[in-house]
Amino acid sequence: MGFTLHPTLAKDTVLAARVGPLQVRLVDDARFFWLVIVPETTATELHDLDEKTAQSLWALVRRLGQALKAHCDADKINSAAIGNMVPQLHFHIIARHVGDAAWPKPVWGHGKAEPLGAPTRAARLESIQSWLGN
Amino acid sequence: MGFTLHPTLAKDTVLAARVGPLQVRLVDDARFFWLVIVPETTATELHDLDEKTAQSLWALVRRLGQALKAHCDADKINSAAIGNMVPQLHFHIIARHVGDAAWPKPVWGHGKAEPLGAPTRAARLESIQSWLGN
Repeated sequence: MGFTLHPTLAKDTVLAARVGPLQVRLVDDARFFWLVIVPETTATELHDLDEKTAQSLWALVRRLGQALKAHCDADKINSAAIGNMVPQLHFHIIARHVGDAAWPKPVWGHGKAEPLGAPTRAARLESIQSWLGN
Repeated sequence: MGFTLHPTLAKDTVLAARVGPLQVRLVDDARFFWLVIVPETTATELHDLDEKTAQSLWALVRRLGQALKAHCDADKINSAAIGNMVPQLHFHIIARHVGDAAWPKPVWGHGKAEPLGAPTRAARLESIQSWLGN
């Protein structure tokens, strides 16, 4: 079986960019600038990624974490692969601010997402693409 | 300023092993087999780690994730750097099971830790050390 994006990720996120086998997706939630990286693989655990994809993932985590922190003037970057609800491997990178909607708790399962307005979504997608040199 | 272990990490975890500049620590919570990797650095974000330490961290995340999953017959490994409460950089690796004390939610901030009994703590420390070839 090949890779097919999980329906929950398809519903809650939008494709911002591709870097090799990695999709960079923007979560549709105005409360946080929140990215997920989805490797186009059937692996469900980080440690099951082939070495080359893992290296690309870590390089991207570093690059996006740095860019997101600077862009949002974030107090903290939260980075995680959890997957208890959506088993398809996806790696979160989230800009956090003291006093944000979930602070200091993690964002997962915290309240309702606030859908992005079209201008904000477009601006975020453009930022992500510029960070990746697209 | 050099590295000093954050008092919360000192209180809630115990040193299991050292791999270069990385401390592998066991969280004192019987509800989950839960590790944190603490790089001996003043960096607070993953993307601020020097390249060599980052590579060692990812290699260790892979090794411990694999070992923990097999050892615990875990349904999922949760991996994260959050740090909203404890800013010192620490990377969680947690074995999760369907129906465990927090499932399917993340473990952070979920209820009260149940301190490990001495025999369980000793057994876990021994397992970790054996996975790392100590």
